[in-house]
Amino acid sequence: MPQSPNHPAYWHTLPRRHGDRVRADGGSAANDMLVMGTHVGTHIDALAHVSHNGRLFGGADARAAGEGGFYRDHGVHTIAPMVCRGVLLDVPAALGTEVCEPGYEITVADLETTERLQGTPVERGDAVLIRSGWGRRFDAPDRDTFIGHDSGVPGVGEAGAQWLAGRGVHAAGADSIAFERLAPGAGHSSLPAHRVLLVESGVYIVETLDLEEIAAQKVHEFTFVLSPLPLFGATGSPVRPLAVVAGPAAEDGRG
Amino acid sequence: MPQSPNHPAYWHTLPRRHGDRVRADGGSAANDMLVMGTHVGTHIDALAHVSHNGRLFGGADARAAGEGGFYRDHGVHTIAPMVCRGVLLDVPAALGTEVCEPGYEITVADLETTERLQGTPVERGDAVLIRSGWGRRFDAPDRDTFIGHDSGVPGVGEAGAQWLAGRGVHAAGADSIAFERLAPGAGHSSLPAHRVLLVESGVYIVETLDLEEIAAQKVHEFTFVLSPLPLFGATGSPVRPLAVVAGPAAEDGRG
Amino acid sequence: MPQSPNHPAYWHTLPRRHGDRVRADGGSAANDMLVMGTHVGTHIDALAHVSHNGRLFGGADARAAGEGGFYRDHGVHTIAPMVCRGVLLDVPAALGTEVCEPGYEITVADLETTERLQGTPVERGDAVLIRSGWGRRFDAPDRDTFIGHDSGVPGVGEAGAQWLAGRGVHAAGADSIAFERLAPGAGHSSLPAHRVLLVESGVYIVETLDLEEIAAQKVHEFTFVLSPLPLFGATGSPVRPLAVVAGPAAEDGRG
Amino acid sequence: MPQSPNHPAYWHTLPRRHGDRVRADGGSAANDMLVMGTHVGTHIDALAHVSHNGRLFGGADARAAGEGGFYRDHGVHTIAPMVCRGVLLDVPAALGTEVCEPGYEITVADLETTERLQGTPVERGDAVLIRSGWGRRFDAPDRDTFIGHDSGVPGVGEAGAQWLAGRGVHAAGADSIAFERLAPGAGHSSLPAHRVLLVESGVYIVETLDLEEIAAQKVHEFTFVLSPLPLFGATGSPVRPLAVVAGPAAEDGRG
Repeated sequence: MPQSPNHPAYWHTLPRRHGDRVRADGGSAANDMLVMGTHVGTHIDALAHVSHNGRLFGGADARAAGEGGFYRDHGVHTIAPMVCRGVLLDVPAALGTEVCEPGYEITVADLETTERLQGTPVERGDAVLIRSGWGRRFDAPDRDTFIGHDSGVPGVGEAGAQWLAGRGVHAAGADSIAFERLAPGAGHSSLPAHRVLLVESGVYIVETLDLEEIAAQKVHEFTFVLSPLPLFGATGSPVRPLAVVAGPAAEDGRG
Repeated sequence: MPQSPNHPAYWHTLPRRHGDRVRADGGSAANDMLVMGTHVGTHIDALAHVSHNGRLFGGADARAAGEGGFYRDHGVHTIAPMVCRGVLLDVPAALGTEVCEPGYEITVADLETTERLQGTPVERGDAVLIRSGWGRRFDAPDRDTFIGHDSGVPGVGEAGAQWLAGRGVHAAGADSIAFERLAPGAGHSSLPAHRVLLVESGVYIVETLDLEEIAAQKVHEFTFVLSPLPLFGATGSPVRPLAVVAGPAAEDGRG
Repeated sequence: MPQSPNHPAYWHTLPRRHGDRVRADGGSAANDMLVMGTHVGTHIDALAHVSHNGRLFGGADARAAGEGGFYRDHGVHTIAPMVCRGVLLDVPAALGTEVCEPGYEITVADLETTERLQGTPVERGDAVLIRSGWGRRFDAPDRDTFIGHDSGVPGVGEAGAQWLAGRGVHAAGADSIAFERLAPGAGHSSLPAHRVLLVESGVYIVETLDLEEIAAQKVHEFTFVLSPLPLFGATGSPVRPLAVVAGPAAEDGRG
Repeated sequence: MPQSPNHPAYWHTLPRRHGDRVRADGGSAANDMLVMGTHVGTHIDALAHVSHNGRLFGGADARAAGEGGFYRDHGVHTIAPMVCRGVLLDVPAALGTEVCEPGYEITVADLETTERLQGTPVERGDAVLIRSGWGRRFDAPDRDTFIGHDSGVPGVGEAGAQWLAGRGVHAAGADSIAFERLAPGAGHSSLPAHRVLLVESGVYIVETLDLEEIAAQKVHEFTFVLSPLPLFGATGSPVRPLAVVAGPAAEDGRG
């Protein structure tokens, strides 16, 4: 699984396997140990994840907010489960291409073209999932392909984030590990969309979404269900969100 | 948070806090490390969690199934997200009491009385959540109160599990850490309902549910949404399931 | 293994066991994952472990010292490996008893009586290991017996710590989890010997030592060898120190 | 720190920092959480680490030996602390070069030339530390340089391991992550020296030693002190071994 080197990697082990200890009645239980950051795999960023000039969303002092070892006010436990309208903005489909180029900044015009062509205007309170096509690289044998440090990664930039915030969306997601556009070779040195959404606007960010299936099925509007683990004071949570449609459910989670 | 001593405890730390490292543009990111078993807090048991006489559901050799360090066939990654009919069986309400007694075995008659009085017959494919009232002890200052080793814990026994399996339910849940009835002082020495559901019937088990709120609101029928993390080869996953009703969503997750 | 509830518990698992993956040449390797605090089992406290009134040893601001997520100046990586004179002060033997009573404060008079009767005066630069006999409880079936919250734990208090510091010792150890005397029921609410040694005097503390074997053999003077893991920025390290005598080595480590 | 991708990576975090929680008396304690494999940094391999054709040292069934989740018989807790004669074989110095070439197999002739030129014959029970000079790459900015998958890594091969076993050494170490010679591009696909030493001969292996300092000081003979953490049932332990000489101690640990 591709992972940001900034976060503790996902490790799963089986401390106990079947056969290790069998009860008198013939039963045995196997169990797990997980070690992981919260920003690995498909996950949601809590508002506490990012600060700017020492301030969190709402103006709280970011350093003081973490004293005690948890973020009481803007931790991921404060995010209510979401059951709301979801909109997929399939940008490359609207632009008549397969996938956006590495490092391409999805513009406000691109977003507006997409919602218009799809007939799915973005509305207040929506969860908006922006497909760049980058998610196709998730299963590349080397993790660098998906992380895209050298190549850059497509996504919205500061302008696109302001457009989303201006529309009053509740959450914004994408099919890349950093949500926003990364310039080739720049890595995470500048993340203006995170600032706009998390710090200035209180909009949650969902990353590493698998949007290929709903895009292929042209599911552009759905009920979005996302239920973060209420990890007290944490800055994010692994999640497996769903796009629920009238017929059978289509999943967009990824792990 | 009460936790079974059989599983790695939940630990959350902040490797990086705001202020530790500030980028040139004034931004900083805080992050988390989680260490945990998968059977802590509200969680779902995969079929691979339990074996009986060396066999998993479907008859596979339980020891061989774990070779490689993961359960490929019945791990939690094989559980499809659930969006299905949910039924709350509020047993103590039907029995005219506040909570079931410690160590009380909820009988088939109790279950049938409850579904009848509520007017919510259990049907094939349902997720059935059985309230004993034990969940009120979740926030007790000492963890032993909720785990209930000495006192025993109320819940269904072998007969109740067979009734659930016979009805063809998809998943069964309860507001205690072991789902099923535990005799006083017996701990987990015998878990017949786990055997019936996980090994013999292929029915998933959800534990440590918070059912108090929907019980108080008399929400006995709803859309049940549960989306396990697709942890490859693991025997369970922490989850935050939802009871979605026509009006505003009522949550039953717990973490 | 008894562990302080203030620290992440020790967990060991085998992610890979023999048979999981066999190379073409018939070889296979098993490996481990450890999760642990650094103050579990036999361990050494770095000076960065404790602050008083916001200051570390030498006067540095304790809060600022931890920014970045590590203690650069007084972390355990700054402790040079020790190969020095070691003295066992077998206090109960000198007092004509088997073990000190729970909660007993070992006095300066006790320490001086012991060094005199043993003929092992404490000198500058020594590692001084103070036996109370509490280590006999290490293998008690319940962890509470060794931790001793309710009973209290014997050990030196503030006066004994000042005596040690006045003698110019390099490190001080004991056969209990907190090194110093704990009053019955008080737990770690007050730890004056830690303050005197770590914050005011720069003397390292070694805890949960197994001193029973060298005490039984009346080995009161030896070469003390302790080699902490150089965990960058950490506040302590698990260790397995040795008491090396002219003949065969006698070990005092514990894990 | 360079680490093998086969083992859980080393992560250190501070769950509690100074200032998070201050006691009434002005004291505060900071603490740590470690997550790590046991084969990271300087470490020792227990005999249980490697099997061949399904057998451990002494012939035990390797698969059965791990049941229960620990290696009771050949785990690292069975390794007695070492205080014994140590010999540094500074191979490149004896060969008149700075460092051995990547992928170079140190021959038996090289080992015998080195012990002869140094005047330090290898004897029964010794700990023999073989310097190739590879340790100079430990601090390279990228971890691949030290791991050396593509370049290959110098070290003894099967013949050298048999020579060491024939001499009856107690432990053998080197300044690389895999101890033995790795062919360019081959990685760990074949590890004959591990088989000879761990499985056939019962000789412990110490890896990722820092031998540069004692080599520079021409310390070729010393008291070797290595005290593994007695991690019950584990296949290895991080260690910080020492080369103790008559004068001031010279350390060869690395972490």
